[in-house]
Amino acid sequence: MSGVIVTGPPKADPKDVGAIAAYGTATVHEAMGRTGLLGTRLRPVQQGTRIAGTAVTVLSWPGDNLMIHAAVEQCGEGDVLVVTTTSPSTDGMFGELFATALQRRGVRGLVIDAGVRDTGELRAMGFPVWAAAVSPQGTVKATGGSVNVPVVLGGQVVRPGDVILADDDGVVCVPRADARRTAEASEARERKEALARAAFQEGELGLDRYGLRDTLARLGVTYTSYDAYVRDGAAP
Amino acid sequence: MSGVIVTGPPKADPKDVGAIAAYGTATVHEAMGRTGLLGTRLRPVQQGTRIAGTAVTVLSWPGDNLMIHAAVEQCGEGDVLVVTTTSPSTDGMFGELFATALQRRGVRGLVIDAGVRDTGELRAMGFPVWAAAVSPQGTVKATGGSVNVPVVLGGQVVRPGDVILADDDGVVCVPRADARRTAEASEARERKEALARAAFQEGELGLDRYGLRDTLARLGVTYTSYDAYVRDGAAP
Amino acid sequence: MSGVIVTGPPKADPKDVGAIAAYGTATVHEAMGRTGLLGTRLRPVQQGTRIAGTAVTVLSWPGDNLMIHAAVEQCGEGDVLVVTTTSPSTDGMFGELFATALQRRGVRGLVIDAGVRDTGELRAMGFPVWAAAVSPQGTVKATGGSVNVPVVLGGQVVRPGDVILADDDGVVCVPRADARRTAEASEARERKEALARAAFQEGELGLDRYGLRDTLARLGVTYTSYDAYVRDGAAP
Amino acid sequence: MSGVIVTGPPKADPKDVGAIAAYGTATVHEAMGRTGLLGTRLRPVQQGTRIAGTAVTVLSWPGDNLMIHAAVEQCGEGDVLVVTTTSPSTDGMFGELFATALQRRGVRGLVIDAGVRDTGELRAMGFPVWAAAVSPQGTVKATGGSVNVPVVLGGQVVRPGDVILADDDGVVCVPRADARRTAEASEARERKEALARAAFQEGELGLDRYGLRDTLARLGVTYTSYDAYVRDGAAP
Amino acid sequence: MSGVIVTGPPKADPKDVGAIAAYGTATVHEAMGRTGLLGTRLRPVQQGTRIAGTAVTVLSWPGDNLMIHAAVEQCGEGDVLVVTTTSPSTDGMFGELFATALQRRGVRGLVIDAGVRDTGELRAMGFPVWAAAVSPQGTVKATGGSVNVPVVLGGQVVRPGDVILADDDGVVCVPRADARRTAEASEARERKEALARAAFQEGELGLDRYGLRDTLARLGVTYTSYDAYVRDGAAP
Amino acid sequence: MSGVIVTGPPKADPKDVGAIAAYGTATVHEAMGRTGLLGTRLRPVQQGTRIAGTAVTVLSWPGDNLMIHAAVEQCGEGDVLVVTTTSPSTDGMFGELFATALQRRGVRGLVIDAGVRDTGELRAMGFPVWAAAVSPQGTVKATGGSVNVPVVLGGQVVRPGDVILADDDGVVCVPRADARRTAEASEARERKEALARAAFQEGELGLDRYGLRDTLARLGVTYTSYDAYVRDGAAP
Repeated sequence: MSGVIVTGPPKADPKDVGAIAAYGTATVHEAMGRTGLLGTRLRPVQQGTRIAGTAVTVLSWPGDNLMIHAAVEQCGEGDVLVVTTTSPSTDGMFGELFATALQRRGVRGLVIDAGVRDTGELRAMGFPVWAAAVSPQGTVKATGGSVNVPVVLGGQVVRPGDVILADDDGVVCVPRADARRTAEASEARERKEALARAAFQEGELGLDRYGLRDTLARLGVTYTSYDAYVRDGAAP
Repeated sequence: MSGVIVTGPPKADPKDVGAIAAYGTATVHEAMGRTGLLGTRLRPVQQGTRIAGTAVTVLSWPGDNLMIHAAVEQCGEGDVLVVTTTSPSTDGMFGELFATALQRRGVRGLVIDAGVRDTGELRAMGFPVWAAAVSPQGTVKATGGSVNVPVVLGGQVVRPGDVILADDDGVVCVPRADARRTAEASEARERKEALARAAFQEGELGLDRYGLRDTLARLGVTYTSYDAYVRDGAAP
Repeated sequence: MSGVIVTGPPKADPKDVGAIAAYGTATVHEAMGRTGLLGTRLRPVQQGTRIAGTAVTVLSWPGDNLMIHAAVEQCGEGDVLVVTTTSPSTDGMFGELFATALQRRGVRGLVIDAGVRDTGELRAMGFPVWAAAVSPQGTVKATGGSVNVPVVLGGQVVRPGDVILADDDGVVCVPRADARRTAEASEARERKEALARAAFQEGELGLDRYGLRDTLARLGVTYTSYDAYVRDGAAP
Repeated sequence: MSGVIVTGPPKADPKDVGAIAAYGTATVHEAMGRTGLLGTRLRPVQQGTRIAGTAVTVLSWPGDNLMIHAAVEQCGEGDVLVVTTTSPSTDGMFGELFATALQRRGVRGLVIDAGVRDTGELRAMGFPVWAAAVSPQGTVKATGGSVNVPVVLGGQVVRPGDVILADDDGVVCVPRADARRTAEASEARERKEALARAAFQEGELGLDRYGLRDTLARLGVTYTSYDAYVRDGAAP
Repeated sequence: MSGVIVTGPPKADPKDVGAIAAYGTATVHEAMGRTGLLGTRLRPVQQGTRIAGTAVTVLSWPGDNLMIHAAVEQCGEGDVLVVTTTSPSTDGMFGELFATALQRRGVRGLVIDAGVRDTGELRAMGFPVWAAAVSPQGTVKATGGSVNVPVVLGGQVVRPGDVILADDDGVVCVPRADARRTAEASEARERKEALARAAFQEGELGLDRYGLRDTLARLGVTYTSYDAYVRDGAAP
Repeated sequence: MSGVIVTGPPKADPKDVGAIAAYGTATVHEAMGRTGLLGTRLRPVQQGTRIAGTAVTVLSWPGDNLMIHAAVEQCGEGDVLVVTTTSPSTDGMFGELFATALQRRGVRGLVIDAGVRDTGELRAMGFPVWAAAVSPQGTVKATGGSVNVPVVLGGQVVRPGDVILADDDGVVCVPRADARRTAEASEARERKEALARAAFQEGELGLDRYGLRDTLARLGVTYTSYDAYVRDGAAP
């Protein structure tokens, strides 16, 4: 397999990345019209960390981390490395040596739809990782692949330069062209949620706040007392 | 889809709930004759927390959290919200806004055979959750369902008012009618285990304590030295 | 089902076990020529713990922990209990009572391709466990099995007396006969990795350090600027 | 583990069973208000067979088929054997010898949330099976369980005497008390579907037949030409 | 959720579709440089059928088939309907009524990353389906989605008008712009494979035909007799 | 990765292989004391075929079929090719060209804990395959591995020259040294099963034939009428 290493892709504006970093993945996913989620398979190796950065993408052969080496050179300040394989793999393609090299270059973290290893060391050095598997299994450097081409993780296309946001809930990708407007929409949503939070703390119900009593009625959902429910023969 | 919201179901006696809360899920599951377990798919979002409360049940359409809104109104002091969907779903149906509303009402936690989001915030606010998935994926409010009807999670029927006990190991349901006797049986089992624990600390063997040497002999399990075992041609 | 309990198997030299304990599973797996890994299904119940010890092996019927009782007697200072079942099972075959008995005997931990329970208590008492599942589900003592025979976990044969090394990444088995040379090879690898780490901290690239630019060229992987890439019609 | 064998449970009326047998599982599931489905894990061992019968239920310990032996005696003409285990198991608990015994008693088939074996022989002798797994793995007869108690398969409670309907799509359970009305509702649905089928063959659209154009408009779903869509900057 | 229905997308040339239909998915996937595969989760409902056609794409909410109704109107002669959901779902979104409507319009089959039902009827009427699940579970028509937008199935982007090729092995997508050259490359590959087939039938070895003895030597793979292998201490 | 190709391993006696071929995998697994099963993940690509032969084993890197080429040369009349990978993979490592080469050499089939492709062609040419996955995904020839070393599939060690038996239920491995005695034990078991089959056809019950009524009583399993069961308060 051959492949291509694309250099110098445009990246989302750092100001927009910084603005998006202020929100959680759930908020940003909602602000994007419920899109952008990289599925539920990528889990954080650490707890309580949120990062946002610009994607450097890698497409590797399973069991082979050659292209991650090629990608390191393409990474810089504020980037997030995003790795996937041409077919499913749990091998530990990435460990603390890679993290050392990336951390020195200002890379903010790793998102990988495959395995990582040295997870204890990664936590200790504060290099955040979201991965599909944890495995000591080593890899070879024998087959080509690509860097900075569009890749798909968890049903979501990620292009180089897109914004990657990751926290305890998972990972979201904001297309580069949508970064500004997503930051704004996220702020608007956060304001709306702050109002709802305050209302719920006061005891207001979502049923009333969102007008859902009408929805229930329209859908034919009815209320019945437990006694009537049992009397009518329902299994108690 | 229509559905029904059942109001005012009877609940297990708070004294019995409190008594059950003193034991772990493994102990209570054993005390019930090894029943009541809600499978192995529901994992705690936090670590080191144990809760017990009375079930308010929700049956939702996948990708839809309308009925959780309806359920909030039915929840009160000492309850645990128990949510499942009509078909498997990993969507993040529940987050910190719902937790805010429930916490104010005195609800003790959530058990959900689907996804949750805002897990960092949920841990920070101390609202305990056991879930089948973590996902930022948002949901709609478009399809009916039911509240306080019998539901099935992990092969176990849960009825409104049943006792829900959850800890680091998982979730157990104690039927309302069995709460008192289960609390007593759990206490008896705990006493028995305390004696075993002390004996094991002294070096007694389970083989002797439980009379298992006879069982091994009856089953034809034999002892052989490693040397004899290898000499007899067994793969070493 | 009958079975056999093999007594007095030879064990790896404690000095070699101690030497291996100085390295992580990824390092030792590499030092063994990328072998020895017990798959990716066995996950630590705790975080930040590494153990090494000599295997006492158990082959149990699913849903039955009789043979773990038999194995306790065969366990001593410096051992690690290694349990699997004749067919897949998630039942909680092991809990804090077993851990109490083993801890008193100087056993260093448990590796089990099935379920455990009392995970909160196990963490509290500092007895480390790597397991395929967490489940309160109890088991019976009705069917025979074997102790200290070769068993297979995660595609890896484990023989009694082999070295078991486990950390946050997973579990590796070092055959008894290979313990010495594996300890040495691990030390050599660690030295090599220390040099690489220092170089990466200085900004050297793996591409250069490992001569991978030639590999990329030989494989036909090419470099192209983003502008040229898009101009040539590639999907941006 | 002890247990109970319940004898002589009431059964659904054979006439209703026969009426339900005329419809597929999808039709009957819809006729019951989209309930009754035993999940998606139970797959047919054969193709092109549909059966309906009254449930004889079995709850077994994993790896143990003792209670199936006990259940055979409780089975008769027109029954379907329904087996589950107290925790997940793939063992081949059932094979052609059991099928021989059941076939002689007039039993119509097996539904099992565990494994079967002798699948070639089962197909050859025309004994239909829906199972969660196929495995030659044998089982013991060492632990108790129950016959003709309520069991849960795939999130659905099955009680002795309920109607079990199974075809290429899966398995549905119709509660005994609902058999008559479900047969009638299924017939009504089938009539409705026959009209829809004829209309679709004539070229009518579901959009028109079910008034869904209004639904799309209400939900804000819009139409746009491909040219306008691309012109507006959407990713082509 | 709102969405968009895109009308009149350009489609791959029917001549190219016809040319691609002459090859299996493995051949075409190879001819495209080992790309285009829609993962391994989509399995054929029937055996021995191969189809090729142009994609009409659908993005639906889980548990909701409203947008399939909208898509039927956009389907015509030579199309293949390609359906996915915004989050994972096994519900039976598609059955024989939809197939009836599509068959009348000349649609060649369905590819769906969710569930289907009426599989017996679908086989009987000769409407081929590749699906991620089989389930009688019905769906609602309550939430919007999109038709003829880019969708992702199994890690592969599918755009309206792309060529979909499906057979017993799985499903491959050929981008519209690559259809001609892929047909040609497939023919070239088939010719090459015919030569290899003839050579292998004559007894030639791949080792010789592809020059792999050198590769083995370069990689350090050595030959040894069984006797020497065992004599050197390898586990026999 | 380097590796080794072991030539000329001893093989099980063809007469014993032929004798074992007369029985199904369930029978032989039982005759071996319920051992030898290669798990439940390996499914037949065809239906109604049983083969027995001597193992030629392959250990490959994931995504790489180089070593299968090397193995072809080691295969001869009466062999079965047994392939696994160093870490889990679903790639289609094997297709009809390999089958052509093997068929010419008298090889009886393939057992592979990875993927295959060209399944339609494999069925058409009558080359039987048991595989963990079906996938058109192609592989490279870039990384070493081994031939005719011990490998592990589904928790079972397979050594070159062992007997592989495969049918619709799955795959069983009979160690070379046990072939004779397993053939005899299988015949004995078959005779015993023939008697049981005849008895069951006459209406005898397993409860009586195997003396299980005593077992039930010893375990405390009791009989109760449905009326008494409901009267005592059990959930009906």
